[in-house]
Amino acid sequence: MGSSYEFSRNENKDVSLQELRDRLAEFSRVRDWEQYHSPRNLLLALVGEVGELSEIFQWKGEVARGLPNWSSDDKEHLGEELSDVLLYLIQLADVCGIDLGQAALSKIVKNARKYPVSNQTPAAASTN
Amino acid sequence: MGSSYEFSRNENKDVSLQELRDRLAEFSRVRDWEQYHSPRNLLLALVGEVGELSEIFQWKGEVARGLPNWSSDDKEHLGEELSDVLLYLIQLADVCGIDLGQAALSKIVKNARKYPVSNQTPAAASTN
Amino acid sequence: MGSSYEFSRNENKDVSLQELRDRLAEFSRVRDWEQYHSPRNLLLALVGEVGELSEIFQWKGEVARGLPNWSSDDKEHLGEELSDVLLYLIQLADVCGIDLGQAALSKIVKNARKYPVSNQTPAAASTN
Amino acid sequence: MGSSYEFSRNENKDVSLQELRDRLAEFSRVRDWEQYHSPRNLLLALVGEVGELSEIFQWKGEVARGLPNWSSDDKEHLGEELSDVLLYLIQLADVCGIDLGQAALSKIVKNARKYPVSNQTPAAASTN
Repeated sequence: MGSSYEFSRNENKDVSLQELRDRLAEFSRVRDWEQYHSPRNLLLALVGEVGELSEIFQWKGEVARGLPNWSSDDKEHLGEELSDVLLYLIQLADVCGIDLGQAALSKIVKNARKYPVSNQTPAAASTN
Repeated sequence: MGSSYEFSRNENKDVSLQELRDRLAEFSRVRDWEQYHSPRNLLLALVGEVGELSEIFQWKGEVARGLPNWSSDDKEHLGEELSDVLLYLIQLADVCGIDLGQAALSKIVKNARKYPVSNQTPAAASTN
Repeated sequence: MGSSYEFSRNENKDVSLQELRDRLAEFSRVRDWEQYHSPRNLLLALVGEVGELSEIFQWKGEVARGLPNWSSDDKEHLGEELSDVLLYLIQLADVCGIDLGQAALSKIVKNARKYPVSNQTPAAASTN
Repeated sequence: MGSSYEFSRNENKDVSLQELRDRLAEFSRVRDWEQYHSPRNLLLALVGEVGELSEIFQWKGEVARGLPNWSSDDKEHLGEELSDVLLYLIQLADVCGIDLGQAALSKIVKNARKYPVSNQTPAAASTN
């Protein structure tokens, strides 16, 4: 109520990257927008959305996990900006012929090999 | 061969955002990296990865859909950078308590209402 | 006329980074905004402005040097977004205690040593 | 010593945007790199450098003004990344035919009108 979605982790729906990709492809197709969706156009649109996401956090100083003092409106706005980044990222991968879900799984496996389990900081690990 | 994954759309595996989120949470937990994953740290890491993604495209001029002249190594590199953006985005949503999949579905619905089916350009539509 | 500034290269005024830094420092001081100007706040504000700059170019496909078909309003808008990036960059350097002008001159010298004069492409050169 | 430049504010040299622009134009001309410097190529290169700048700050949590605990090497690295952003920004403005210095001065004047002197926060002011 008051919000178009809930921020609970207990959702029944497990949304897949392919489902989002297919919905976005149909969205663009029926609006005849595919002509604008070149890789670099989508990349710049993605950068634009990362900018809007950053604006949410820009004057806040450090922010605690879980956003304890944020209003539900602010959280909804954040959810929209995170989504905008995701949706352009999915479309960019799609027009480049990249299977984003498989690529992401592969990257996690690669990262696990690169950073064996230890107590290193990310910074320390990344210099190894 | 030579690549750890294929760029085919005919993958059997339909990767979900929750699966990726859970894998990443486990990845950080066993490495004791959760302490570094504040919202703004993850946001800046995301911006860093968007930068690496942009570097792939920076000197290329316009790039055709499907990347017809790219080597498989270049495509694999692109898949990795797209993944890095995705993985930080998922983690950022997670530490903020946002259900990214639900948020993305809601945003598509909202966009569909904002841009009724027509032949408008994105730019023209966005000024309405 | 119709624009608050001209896009000519024949300006008399040679604007320095220190002049801009000083004007911005005074701007913030009299508004009591220095309290918000931590390094990471300014960095995220910079990222936000880079996003707005990217939005100007996002649906345009390749753009010719000199922007031959752009309206004066579009050029003025572009000048404002370029300026917003510059102004946050100057402020970020300032709160970090970096002399941006000297750093920039040093970087040009360093780049000149890194890329001796030849006909290499930037991409080819950068892998050497 | 050990650093190619000093981070003092007491430099004699007041570096201007036109001087940097002219040096960069000559740098590109003698290397025959102008062919790569289309507006969107330079914009994506700028985004790439903003990413590298963000990586410096990504795992640090909040950072105090003046960077009191940073090594001189870390400060020099920061100066280089800030410079890389500046140098691409100047080149982007140049190929677009924008006088960046004049645009920046005009933007400060415009901001002064938009935000009259008061004790408003940036966030509060920006919603007026």
